[in-house]
Amino acid sequence: MASPSTTPSFTDRAQLDWMISVDDHVLEHPRVWLDRLPAKYAEVAPQVVREGDEEYWVYEGKKVPTTGLGASAGRARSEFTTKPLRFDEMRPGCYDSKARLEDMNVDGVLASLCFPSFPRFCGQVFHEAEDRELALLCVQAYNDWMIDEWCGSAPGRFIPLTLIPLWDPQLAVKEIERCKDKGASGFCFSEGPSALGLPSLYDAGRYWDPVLKAAEDTGMVVCTHIGSSSRMPTTAPDCPMMVSVVLQPLNAMNNLTDWLFSGALVRFPQIKVALSEGGIGWIPATLERAAYVLDRHRYWAGKDGVSIKGQDGASLPPEVLDADLHQLFRDHIYGCFIDEEFGVANLDAIGIDNVMAETDYPHSDSSWPNSRKVIHARLAGRTDEEVYKILQGNAIRVFDFTPAPIPQV
Amino acid sequence: MASPSTTPSFTDRAQLDWMISVDDHVLEHPRVWLDRLPAKYAEVAPQVVREGDEEYWVYEGKKVPTTGLGASAGRARSEFTTKPLRFDEMRPGCYDSKARLEDMNVDGVLASLCFPSFPRFCGQVFHEAEDRELALLCVQAYNDWMIDEWCGSAPGRFIPLTLIPLWDPQLAVKEIERCKDKGASGFCFSEGPSALGLPSLYDAGRYWDPVLKAAEDTGMVVCTHIGSSSRMPTTAPDCPMMVSVVLQPLNAMNNLTDWLFSGALVRFPQIKVALSEGGIGWIPATLERAAYVLDRHRYWAGKDGVSIKGQDGASLPPEVLDADLHQLFRDHIYGCFIDEEFGVANLDAIGIDNVMAETDYPHSDSSWPNSRKVIHARLAGRTDEEVYKILQGNAIRVFDFTPAPIPQV
Repeated sequence: MASPSTTPSFTDRAQLDWMISVDDHVLEHPRVWLDRLPAKYAEVAPQVVREGDEEYWVYEGKKVPTTGLGASAGRARSEFTTKPLRFDEMRPGCYDSKARLEDMNVDGVLASLCFPSFPRFCGQVFHEAEDRELALLCVQAYNDWMIDEWCGSAPGRFIPLTLIPLWDPQLAVKEIERCKDKGASGFCFSEGPSALGLPSLYDAGRYWDPVLKAAEDTGMVVCTHIGSSSRMPTTAPDCPMMVSVVLQPLNAMNNLTDWLFSGALVRFPQIKVALSEGGIGWIPATLERAAYVLDRHRYWAGKDGVSIKGQDGASLPPEVLDADLHQLFRDHIYGCFIDEEFGVANLDAIGIDNVMAETDYPHSDSSWPNSRKVIHARLAGRTDEEVYKILQGNAIRVFDFTPAPIPQV
Repeated sequence: MASPSTTPSFTDRAQLDWMISVDDHVLEHPRVWLDRLPAKYAEVAPQVVREGDEEYWVYEGKKVPTTGLGASAGRARSEFTTKPLRFDEMRPGCYDSKARLEDMNVDGVLASLCFPSFPRFCGQVFHEAEDRELALLCVQAYNDWMIDEWCGSAPGRFIPLTLIPLWDPQLAVKEIERCKDKGASGFCFSEGPSALGLPSLYDAGRYWDPVLKAAEDTGMVVCTHIGSSSRMPTTAPDCPMMVSVVLQPLNAMNNLTDWLFSGALVRFPQIKVALSEGGIGWIPATLERAAYVLDRHRYWAGKDGVSIKGQDGASLPPEVLDADLHQLFRDHIYGCFIDEEFGVANLDAIGIDNVMAETDYPHSDSSWPNSRKVIHARLAGRTDEEVYKILQGNAIRVFDFTPAPIPQV
């Protein structure tokens, strides 16, 4: 497990004015794949097509729509839209690393970890592809672009986050190792693999174990963004989309519960899992509930774990029965927040070493260009050491990342 | 809206040793319906059948299974089981009101509100029936039994909770009025009607408005128990049942969000809604998230509320756009807890007037016979006035209920 005692300390109070964001987003520019795939794939490789006033990605002949909420940076709330935007309608920081760096400097963001957009939050688009050979090349091309071009453009300012071929754990292990050698800090993973047609973390055949072992061996963080199950919470067929946005943290609650009850954190004692954009205010109640239920229901759940409708009656993995769930959380799980009063007021109940900051740039929940101010206001009254951990120290430790010196801007 | 200023005060400190539980369960005895339905229904009325070593309910020729977790009172945790139990294997307090009263006295429970078992948490079994005429008679028979026999056996010790015919709002209104006249304090409602094949709270045709109006006019509390959508949270086809038990509060989060965003609380300013067995620790983070999203996404959601997969693109009801969601919660919503450290530590963030206590007897999450001790321990450090509100005062006010004098036992 990652020991909090290795948290780097800070020497300059001015450093506290900057933050590391562990959940931002990049909109890949149109030539990411065309520049890197063999010429024979020119027709089917992911590319941007313009039709009338609209642009969209096309891959293997299928249109892949986007949403304007994913490119909201710089727009007033009254101009947020769910309609797709063209590149020339977006703030250049969405897709251009030099422009992004300027936007980070405005916001006091020392370093940023970016999730993919066209491939979706854990590369679902490549998992769903017809041609798996091409799909693997696409994953590798994304990773090369992310590490060499996006992050390489400003060393120490971007934390390299990569994709894996979800459909083949052995190939995923190779890609994790290849990316680690190239300097990556983590890879995207699904918050709910079974919703993608893949085995869950409970899989009796231990489908994911090679991937989890590689995460442990390389120290790469398993980054699970809300929505990476391709599922959004809904309550009714006619509920407004806003209800799904409100309930996004439910995905992270499901995800955390799976990590705790699957036994994976017991079997892989060094693994690190980030709950990306899941928020933090719900964490203490969920952990308490999990521990309460494990204590109270441990007997029948361990022996006759009988089915309820829709489930196949799986029993609890035996290694979970004696686990201290709060300790498993502290040793393995890292949450982050954009702007939360209640969650930050309860940092001690969550764990000061388990929370990081994010800006969510350029998505609609971002506070950019005021992320740093918003987060500093929430942390008022905390010690410098605590502020440093949330703003930078925990991210540096968890992602084993060395940021650039504080920019002189 | 129910004004907290009407909270009854207490005059005797000894009174603080007793609690009112707003979420318990009754297992209906075998003759509840046979005793009350016309003789012509003797074959198809709900009745208990023994087959070998097992007993189960039969209704319209269909077997309705139970779970032993619903009759755990008095059993050690190591004897909890999901297998069905016969009446002679249960503690008599499960189904016998005199035995229940003794069990309440042991636990310091002054009054108890009980949800149904065979009919399910909001009477889904009758909603799913073939013969709706019989089903209505079954609902009425349950309500007569609940009010006259179960609650009538010990005036002031049971809060009468009734059922409605979910399939017909006009009949439901009549039944609400009939039960109010007989002394009922609330009725069961689904946490997710659309999962039962019924319109949701967002229904453009305002299917539920007559029922909500009747709730407002009569002062009857709308009691929404987790599971009353006939859905339990799951994360994967092979997740252990324990994961669903951990995630039960998600049902209450969905339910609360629907009440806040449907506009029902704005349109019916006197309505009272109980989130039964949903816990409380998650409430502040959910409310904060809801208000954050309403503020930030109000513009696009109010005009082009575009669809996401699986939804029909409903827009937010206009009356919600200017609502203060925290105030709507304080005016209308009541949570309860069995045993929660984090939730009780954050009572002020939830609202001291919006939380009640429960024992969950005879279900497996109950602390019986130590419910009162557990809850008192959690409330250590609170003022007498606050303790009184949580233990009794809020329930008395919300359910407009006059409890019996403190028993001399």
